[in-house]
Amino acid sequence: MRAACLPAFASAAVEQTAAIIVIGNEILSGKVVDTNSPYLARELRALGVDLRRVVVIPDEVEVIAEVVRELAPKVDYVFTSGGVGPTHDDVTMEGVAQGLGRHVVRHPALERFWRDYFGREAQSALKMAEVPEGGELLLGEGITVPVVKVANVYVLPGIPEFFRGDFEAIRERFRLAPFHLRRVYLRTSEGAIAAKLHELLAAYPDLLLGSYPTVSDPAYDVLVTLESKDAACVEEALKSLLALLPPQAVLRWE
Amino acid sequence: MRAACLPAFASAAVEQTAAIIVIGNEILSGKVVDTNSPYLARELRALGVDLRRVVVIPDEVEVIAEVVRELAPKVDYVFTSGGVGPTHDDVTMEGVAQGLGRHVVRHPALERFWRDYFGREAQSALKMAEVPEGGELLLGEGITVPVVKVANVYVLPGIPEFFRGDFEAIRERFRLAPFHLRRVYLRTSEGAIAAKLHELLAAYPDLLLGSYPTVSDPAYDVLVTLESKDAACVEEALKSLLALLPPQAVLRWE
Repeated sequence: MRAACLPAFASAAVEQTAAIIVIGNEILSGKVVDTNSPYLARELRALGVDLRRVVVIPDEVEVIAEVVRELAPKVDYVFTSGGVGPTHDDVTMEGVAQGLGRHVVRHPALERFWRDYFGREAQSALKMAEVPEGGELLLGEGITVPVVKVANVYVLPGIPEFFRGDFEAIRERFRLAPFHLRRVYLRTSEGAIAAKLHELLAAYPDLLLGSYPTVSDPAYDVLVTLESKDAACVEEALKSLLALLPPQAVLRWE
Repeated sequence: MRAACLPAFASAAVEQTAAIIVIGNEILSGKVVDTNSPYLARELRALGVDLRRVVVIPDEVEVIAEVVRELAPKVDYVFTSGGVGPTHDDVTMEGVAQGLGRHVVRHPALERFWRDYFGREAQSALKMAEVPEGGELLLGEGITVPVVKVANVYVLPGIPEFFRGDFEAIRERFRLAPFHLRRVYLRTSEGAIAAKLHELLAAYPDLLLGSYPTVSDPAYDVLVTLESKDAACVEEALKSLLALLPPQAVLRWE
């Protein structure tokens, strides 16, 4: 058993962090279930980006500004979802601008894009062409609603199909070393293994070790996950864990 | 058409607000989809409580403390989900305590509860009996894992079955006047109706008006929602909206 895994935050130059801001009264009022943040959480994990926070907030300029002001300096990437359409409750651009201390300006290329799209509905085109000053358009295959990048904030549309199409089109710019994951399924209580997990973590302090009991899945009682960007470390820690646990408690691992 | 609905925030004594803090690396890493906050969002809406924010954060004492410190003074109720088990990553009690500026102490009744539950696994009982100083146990029918209430923070378990059972058992203490909701399904683009929605909102400034386009549902193009705790206002606003829209754009309302 070696002393430790490579820490996940060993190199600030390699480790990248992210936050997601989901903007929408419809989520907070329980009318719509947010599927964008679970999707993006999985994508970021596969890319090796460490998602640090998800925040769901109402369509209110001041609240958006406050959360952008708080999170943008803390993480490498902020993704917003929602509030970029033509109606009264679409205030994300204004909120992001305020949060970054910028003005809202009309983006000529975006105005052309929306004028082409809307045809005669010019009023919508004008509203949807407003972006925080310095905003950059990300266009490309699969992008229906252009992504606006301003500082480290990526503004994406809330409609799940557009959100996914947009993220897929820009995904590769975020790719880093991926995480390696092992899952161990157990037939035992969490209480009975807590001390063993402490012991494992003492030997591998940088291992990302998770323990998740279930009550409704008859197939197992507890799922233990071992994760690191250091694949060899995960394999060694898995061996150590299997040696620590009573063999009859281990159902299977993958 | 009367001038306005009763504002949602007309009386601070009647309006109640809430925030949900979901604690779990498994959510941020995309391994598990959070179903507790969508469930609680629906429940709070039905109870008439205004959910102002959902935050998903990692199992880290300092981050939990920071978010509790930020949100507890801002809303009437804070609900936390997860991080209350016996393993190394269960640090919610410590985080909530730090966030409220309290010590963690052992709660004798909770210790007895867990000793009865765990039998000989005393170590787990001791960890799971630790609560922020002044923490109150909420017990009752349907509660499997006791809810700990400290100040305005309600600490609930993360396992969905327990989370729901616990919330159902304490639900009635949060009941207020419910929101009334009307939905109007349209065959038109959001851009084409944006000006009409502005007009409606000018007449009913306190109406909660939502506009949600779909791209994958062939049954309609845009769903408009009208909400208020003032049921008569919603009905009047619905009539006004139907009068403002071209009749052929309206598919149905409910």
